[in-house]
Amino acid sequence: MANDKKMVEAITSMEDDFAQWYTDVVKKADLVSYSSVKGCTIFKPAGYAIWENIQKELDARFKETGVENVYMPMFIPESLLQKEKDHVEGFAPEVAWVTHGGLNKLQERMCVRPTSETLFCDFYKDDIQSYRDLPKVYNQWCSVVRWEKETRPFLRSREFLWQEGHTAHATAEEAEERTVQMLNLYADFCEEVLAIPVVRGQKTEKEKFAGAKATYTIEALMHDGKALQSGTSHNFGDGFAKAFDIQYTDKNNKLQYVHQTSWGMTTRLIGAVIMVHGDNSGLVLPPRIAPTQVMVVPIMQNKEGVLDRAKALQEELAKVCRVKIDDSDKKPGYKYAEQEMRGIPLRVEIGPKDIEAGQCVVVRRDNGEKQIVKLDEIAGLIPQLLEAVQKNLFEKAKAHRDAHIYDAHDYMEFKNIVEEKPGFIRGMWCGEQACEDKIKEDTTATSRCMPFKDQEKISDVCVCCGKPAKKLIYWGKAY
Amino acid sequence: MANDKKMVEAITSMEDDFAQWYTDVVKKADLVSYSSVKGCTIFKPAGYAIWENIQKELDARFKETGVENVYMPMFIPESLLQKEKDHVEGFAPEVAWVTHGGLNKLQERMCVRPTSETLFCDFYKDDIQSYRDLPKVYNQWCSVVRWEKETRPFLRSREFLWQEGHTAHATAEEAEERTVQMLNLYADFCEEVLAIPVVRGQKTEKEKFAGAKATYTIEALMHDGKALQSGTSHNFGDGFAKAFDIQYTDKNNKLQYVHQTSWGMTTRLIGAVIMVHGDNSGLVLPPRIAPTQVMVVPIMQNKEGVLDRAKALQEELAKVCRVKIDDSDKKPGYKYAEQEMRGIPLRVEIGPKDIEAGQCVVVRRDNGEKQIVKLDEIAGLIPQLLEAVQKNLFEKAKAHRDAHIYDAHDYMEFKNIVEEKPGFIRGMWCGEQACEDKIKEDTTATSRCMPFKDQEKISDVCVCCGKPAKKLIYWGKAY
Repeated sequence: MANDKKMVEAITSMEDDFAQWYTDVVKKADLVSYSSVKGCTIFKPAGYAIWENIQKELDARFKETGVENVYMPMFIPESLLQKEKDHVEGFAPEVAWVTHGGLNKLQERMCVRPTSETLFCDFYKDDIQSYRDLPKVYNQWCSVVRWEKETRPFLRSREFLWQEGHTAHATAEEAEERTVQMLNLYADFCEEVLAIPVVRGQKTEKEKFAGAKATYTIEALMHDGKALQSGTSHNFGDGFAKAFDIQYTDKNNKLQYVHQTSWGMTTRLIGAVIMVHGDNSGLVLPPRIAPTQVMVVPIMQNKEGVLDRAKALQEELAKVCRVKIDDSDKKPGYKYAEQEMRGIPLRVEIGPKDIEAGQCVVVRRDNGEKQIVKLDEIAGLIPQLLEAVQKNLFEKAKAHRDAHIYDAHDYMEFKNIVEEKPGFIRGMWCGEQACEDKIKEDTTATSRCMPFKDQEKISDVCVCCGKPAKKLIYWGKAY
Repeated sequence: MANDKKMVEAITSMEDDFAQWYTDVVKKADLVSYSSVKGCTIFKPAGYAIWENIQKELDARFKETGVENVYMPMFIPESLLQKEKDHVEGFAPEVAWVTHGGLNKLQERMCVRPTSETLFCDFYKDDIQSYRDLPKVYNQWCSVVRWEKETRPFLRSREFLWQEGHTAHATAEEAEERTVQMLNLYADFCEEVLAIPVVRGQKTEKEKFAGAKATYTIEALMHDGKALQSGTSHNFGDGFAKAFDIQYTDKNNKLQYVHQTSWGMTTRLIGAVIMVHGDNSGLVLPPRIAPTQVMVVPIMQNKEGVLDRAKALQEELAKVCRVKIDDSDKKPGYKYAEQEMRGIPLRVEIGPKDIEAGQCVVVRRDNGEKQIVKLDEIAGLIPQLLEAVQKNLFEKAKAHRDAHIYDAHDYMEFKNIVEEKPGFIRGMWCGEQACEDKIKEDTTATSRCMPFKDQEKISDVCVCCGKPAKKLIYWGKAY
């Protein structure tokens, strides 16, 4: 069988070279293809189907909280982008500019949206008149463009897919509530659907979104000990409202500025799934987002009756899960390796002897466990097994994450941990950007967030400068 | 009550000015908003939700035929766009050009995709090696950009949403089969889901897609007698394959060019729904794509028990349809007008007297029919009523379409019909583009299609030049 496992042998082991392992998995699991358009990737069916499942699940959760979907133009006139000072400073250096339409030069150049705050604000300015028009809780699914210099599939790309929610509220309290609500929705989604544990917290001034009053974030830990920002939710206060003059008449007939939020999740999440759950046999997909949850593999399929029975089994299982059958003319060992590489949670093997014995063999992708199951019990068992895989993936990821959180009490200890122990570092901070800058320069680690929970005082002084500490911070190298 | 119907009174009647009626409906039904980006519209929740339902239904039908979704970059480098001669000639004059990324001028400018044949071809060139890799039946949902001079919501916009399928096959027969299959899928979708009858046929050389060997189309007739091309499916033969060098090794180990197709449907369909089913009270939505199918309107809702009972009714109906309740403080007459303007198929009125009598009143949007229904029978009846509305809308549209098809036997008759009787004109054609050009110049009517069915010979000579006729054509003015 080992000979058939060529696919597996071709990937670099994650311990040897994590970056190369990642690239190998992305390619061998057939998720993306590089395109002739520099810095942009092509989502192949196996990759895009994961995004479709993420969309479906996330969109349903949005709608339960009253979110309505809309669609804004993909272009932003330069004058519109420039209306909010911090925002334009953050994004102008990395946008793509459209200068010609057809054969004519445009009177005003436009960028392809890097994010759509300015478009939503311009729209809300006219659409919101009275308190009766509030709140607006809109979202759009689209692609955005940021002219990155270095790119990696899913993690950093010149064009990427995402959703961006943009809301407007009558009061500051309501805006804050929505900001927190969406961050929690993101965190629950990551933990319940992607099986990825996250730390919820607030970004520092240095790390917050261009134009925001406050940015909340969820941070996940990848298998190599680097952090990945997995979703952010921003409270803009009335900053954008003032820049764009978005006012409403309140119940007392007085003009008031609205308070706004925005929040987004992207195709980065697919990168997170790969780097949290994947192993040296390839991708490992949590059942809830796996496009195929079960692969039926017939053994000795040319023997009479085997393929028919396997297909009947597939049909039966189709009622309880997303199932496919691999009836290609490849050898079983190759089929196993392929199913493993593609991260399909369960494999069901069925051959002549199994059929005779009224049974089949079920193999879990997450831990390799095999069990023999009676054919008349398999349809009942599969949903339970998928749940068990889902749960185990989360627990494994959480155990790994928790085992890679370290406390640093002074700068020497901090620097040693960064060098020797990849993971999150908990360390106190004085509140000065100078310390963040110094830490980044010395170690490349950045402040990931000030966690909402567990804001304990592990030391009285800043881990960098030794001055009185204000906040506990999760630090780490990040993607 | 008439006083409350301000919304309705504000729209122009379709008989007075169809174009203005259309604009009024689009605006009053809250489907779109104009944006600061010239020629681009904003899809508001009521408009986007229709597109979401179209997507859901169409995507499910695609997947049943083996279509897999992917995502390609939104940019096309100029050199790539230029690879197929006819194609670039067709699209280059109307694309938007990106010339700068961030602060730097690009070495090669790129256009925002007007359609993605060139990107798919570039991808297939590397992805297809052997007959085992075929067929490829890929599709993407995205937006595309064409720098139109005159724009109208849904019908013609500089950016619009669509799906574009791109397939590659081993043989010419298989490509032809897929081209026809998708056209029929589109036609069935229009008739069964949008309740819009269509004529299926082939475009002439003059009207076919840039770079295609053959273009098939479905043509619908709007209420004002103008045609709307509602979906197209193209067979490229091996033209693109030769331009892009897409070859595969067949079973005999010989290199062969692939045969390709592409097919697309767009947000124009929403325009078609408006112009086929709408009336002077506003939008009329077919139940299968109506985001809200039933609106419950409580009468005298401040009377004790009314709102509770109405909400209980809404909850009960939520099990069988998409239902909302209008419990705003507006007057019932205004609520009725609003429900009518938004095209919601059914309205359920419930007031104190109804509750006492154990009944409610159901009003159909399509024909105004009212009926009193027992409260314990309403949940069973609603699905039947929605089906009845769906069926009636199709039949009404078909009767209107069929009553507006005219036969022309000579050019005088043709010109008279174009002037006096808006609709489809059936007329014979010699096969020469010169006649299409002349007809367009004289009358603004164009050849919509050569119908697959009913290719009868209604005359021996071309309706324009009098030379021997080759094909029956549906002519008409078109959007």
